[in-house]
Amino acid sequence: MPLRSASIPEQGVNDMDTLLSPPSRERTIRWDDPRALAEAGRVASGRDFLDAIFRGALPAPPICHLVDFTFERIDDGRVAMLLTPQESQYNPIGSVHGGIIATVLDSVMGCAVHTKLPLGRAYTTLEIKVNYLRSVKRETGPMTAIGWVVHLGRQTAMAEAHLSDTRGKLFAQASATCLILDVPDQSVVAQD
Amino acid sequence: MPLRSASIPEQGVNDMDTLLSPPSRERTIRWDDPRALAEAGRVASGRDFLDAIFRGALPAPPICHLVDFTFERIDDGRVAMLLTPQESQYNPIGSVHGGIIATVLDSVMGCAVHTKLPLGRAYTTLEIKVNYLRSVKRETGPMTAIGWVVHLGRQTAMAEAHLSDTRGKLFAQASATCLILDVPDQSVVAQD
Amino acid sequence: MPLRSASIPEQGVNDMDTLLSPPSRERTIRWDDPRALAEAGRVASGRDFLDAIFRGALPAPPICHLVDFTFERIDDGRVAMLLTPQESQYNPIGSVHGGIIATVLDSVMGCAVHTKLPLGRAYTTLEIKVNYLRSVKRETGPMTAIGWVVHLGRQTAMAEAHLSDTRGKLFAQASATCLILDVPDQSVVAQD
Amino acid sequence: MPLRSASIPEQGVNDMDTLLSPPSRERTIRWDDPRALAEAGRVASGRDFLDAIFRGALPAPPICHLVDFTFERIDDGRVAMLLTPQESQYNPIGSVHGGIIATVLDSVMGCAVHTKLPLGRAYTTLEIKVNYLRSVKRETGPMTAIGWVVHLGRQTAMAEAHLSDTRGKLFAQASATCLILDVPDQSVVAQD
Repeated sequence: MPLRSASIPEQGVNDMDTLLSPPSRERTIRWDDPRALAEAGRVASGRDFLDAIFRGALPAPPICHLVDFTFERIDDGRVAMLLTPQESQYNPIGSVHGGIIATVLDSVMGCAVHTKLPLGRAYTTLEIKVNYLRSVKRETGPMTAIGWVVHLGRQTAMAEAHLSDTRGKLFAQASATCLILDVPDQSVVAQD
Repeated sequence: MPLRSASIPEQGVNDMDTLLSPPSRERTIRWDDPRALAEAGRVASGRDFLDAIFRGALPAPPICHLVDFTFERIDDGRVAMLLTPQESQYNPIGSVHGGIIATVLDSVMGCAVHTKLPLGRAYTTLEIKVNYLRSVKRETGPMTAIGWVVHLGRQTAMAEAHLSDTRGKLFAQASATCLILDVPDQSVVAQD
Repeated sequence: MPLRSASIPEQGVNDMDTLLSPPSRERTIRWDDPRALAEAGRVASGRDFLDAIFRGALPAPPICHLVDFTFERIDDGRVAMLLTPQESQYNPIGSVHGGIIATVLDSVMGCAVHTKLPLGRAYTTLEIKVNYLRSVKRETGPMTAIGWVVHLGRQTAMAEAHLSDTRGKLFAQASATCLILDVPDQSVVAQD
Repeated sequence: MPLRSASIPEQGVNDMDTLLSPPSRERTIRWDDPRALAEAGRVASGRDFLDAIFRGALPAPPICHLVDFTFERIDDGRVAMLLTPQESQYNPIGSVHGGIIATVLDSVMGCAVHTKLPLGRAYTTLEIKVNYLRSVKRETGPMTAIGWVVHLGRQTAMAEAHLSDTRGKLFAQASATCLILDVPDQSVVAQD
């Protein structure tokens, strides 16, 4: 298949001023040492831990700054976050990358499970599946991701999540399985 | 469950200097206008398009700068990318967020499918499932994600992917379904 | 690891009367030629087709006899079926095989999508994910599977499903992606 | 949308002799009490248990008779089974029901994990995802399902599986997550 040189320059040097001018956009991301946060998480119930992040008594994790999403609401077994779609999240085919959507859906599901865990218990996500229903663009505007616990067992939990725009139109759906385990001993020791 | 105030300050103002000092880390991300890239993608075969990004004749999409991953190799139906795990990708529980892993696995699968598409055909990801096998930390070091096409039909494609460290230890596995469709007419018109 | 011969006989002949007596259970399954059914499906809307099976004007498909489940209710974009867990569905570890649960969940999701399709349109399931929350046994008693359409696009649809016992306790959850396509031409011809 | 009465009779009584004559096909399924089998499974390693079924020293589980599949080969972390597609497995749209395919793929993955478990350890499947690549019909002929362990941890395992025809053409792909746990105490007691 012949390459149309008008659209893709053969060389990386001469004729591509429009495409390869110095990156025209920039964003500076600032975050806090995540170790302190993770340690705080080991000595609180999930609900206390997340509530503390929500009210600003603990710093948000780095990923929230990188991907630009924030807590909107925390309930028992149910968490809502706000995602602002933006150009820095774009994939090569001109929309918000599916991984960004997976990130916020994974977050609301993991946090929803976390709200149910008492002090001394932790979780890790075993798997997540995301169904992409519509493509998300900057013009889509602010989106709400809601995650809720579908099943909470002794060793595992299962959660689901939806990503919608402000009018309630559904853009993505997800499900996840979490493993529930004891907080590792060394962490407890490290706190004492 | 009582909150241990030593670990989570009640107020967001006074007694949390260690946790809530101004964010100590920052990273500046620069990227190019993604519209030009997406338009170039509409007038080339998938392989030509991705090869052009790989050799620097087209700019990398914004997501590559945001998440910090790059093409490592592009073959027919198979794409490898390099991910550098870092602190800005961390979740609240002290490891690289699963969404970051989903992002790079989604990318290598989508691009692997894209290499098989001729001029005039495009794809969109319908769903992705990721199995997380081990947690990824900054100390894990550089990781390779490899995606390959398992099945290519007329209307759909299916791909799989693995994320491994430099010694070949597997950290995550994924599968995805893509819908294959004609490049939207208005784009073709816009190019003429 | 030494084998405890009391529990697993070394030979398949002598000392295993209790385990290898002639199979003590049997069930006879009867079904109709599925080609006539599939052809009827090609010349009706999905809703008309499923309603005809429900009221007995068309025979149930073979799988309903094999796995022993029946329609309970058909609504627009929502289908309920009744599954009777039984010993013939058991796996080697003493409960109803997960594939049986996948069968009924796949059925309610596929049929829910089918209710939304006009004459001339058909569907095929691209993928299904099932989360198993509790093990199902004969003693669990009759179960209801409900499937509903989450998203209906022009080329794809997405559905979800739940499997619950009569008290509403949730035993499994599923999601599926369907491809929507035109009824193949030769079938239409074959009807004329 | 008008119903074409030639294809779907309005009543379940008169004019549908071709479609609603007494079911023309039947199959009688015989199986063994699955409790004895499940108990044998609790007092052997997974490999010993499955090998005993394979060589006929233990009866196959009921599901193998119902769905008509058999072990083809058992290796360490890898199990192959033979499925014979047949009419009794058909869905309303004229091909083998996806749940039948899920059943055999779930089986080879579960058994592959089981081969890795020592005496005293058991597994349960948390979730399975199946991608359907081509439709399976009776004419497809005998099919081989192969499942293999991708990751074996202390508390969880992950497996994948493929379903192919005799020429190696791939018809379905699957992945699963299993929880690994101790054999329940009461079972051990019941054996003593």
